[in-house]
Amino acid sequence: MGKVFKTSVKKTRRIISQLNFEKGLIPVVARNFDGEVLMIAFMNKNALLKTLSTGLMHYYSRRMKKIWMKGGVSGFVQKVLEVRVNCENNSLLFTVKQEGPGACHMGYKTCFYRKILNSGRFKKVEKKVFNPKRVYRK
Amino acid sequence: MGKVFKTSVKKTRRIISQLNFEKGLIPVVARNFDGEVLMIAFMNKNALLKTLSTGLMHYYSRRMKKIWMKGGVSGFVQKVLEVRVNCENNSLLFTVKQEGPGACHMGYKTCFYRKILNSGRFKKVEKKVFNPKRVYRK
Repeated sequence: MGKVFKTSVKKTRRIISQLNFEKGLIPVVARNFDGEVLMIAFMNKNALLKTLSTGLMHYYSRRMKKIWMKGGVSGFVQKVLEVRVNCENNSLLFTVKQEGPGACHMGYKTCFYRKILNSGRFKKVEKKVFNPKRVYRK
Repeated sequence: MGKVFKTSVKKTRRIISQLNFEKGLIPVVARNFDGEVLMIAFMNKNALLKTLSTGLMHYYSRRMKKIWMKGGVSGFVQKVLEVRVNCENNSLLFTVKQEGPGACHMGYKTCFYRKILNSGRFKKVEKKVFNPKRVYRK
């Protein structure tokens, strides 16, 4: 499974200087170490800085306009194992170790728990792995 | 491997009406049927319409401000096998059959052919599978 990937703030600034952020954001994919694609989200420079200095995934929420640590409430953090950069330096692929039963705030392992059918309907094709009402109750 | 996923324009409009586009765009991941993450890109409504009506991946280029069909020049098209939607209806995961040796215009199977090292350096970790100068020469 490999160990957690981290680097210094200085090195992260070097990484950031090579990346192309679009209006301050870069799209990222989190793929679990078992190969499952968990989610697509965005990072700003600070979220990337926090991610790479802690080894834990931090995202930028466009809706809330702030950085949030994945698992901050649920405890289901994502540990960074590897980071890949695309040909145009404008997207990142993180391989992570998803802690706990799943990544999705709806109670699934992956946020992509619904398949689009020919009919245009969205159909659940994954099993619920935790009760979000319990996990996100404060 | 499964057959190509397609649907009608009418059904695609139904799909589109359920999705949350952000300034007209939705981020998408293309994952090859063998599990490899090939690329992250964006679609606008028309690109999604073209993708789902033809069964071939079409993206929206923010730089060129236009829709392009993946493989339009190289012939290395991506056939749609499955589409998944995330919990917030604001990103899509496509499972595709990548035709030809690879997806990346730099000559690699995946656009994520470089790993970020602790040093901050980007290191190629995949082998070149075609010569882009030949493939993209017109």
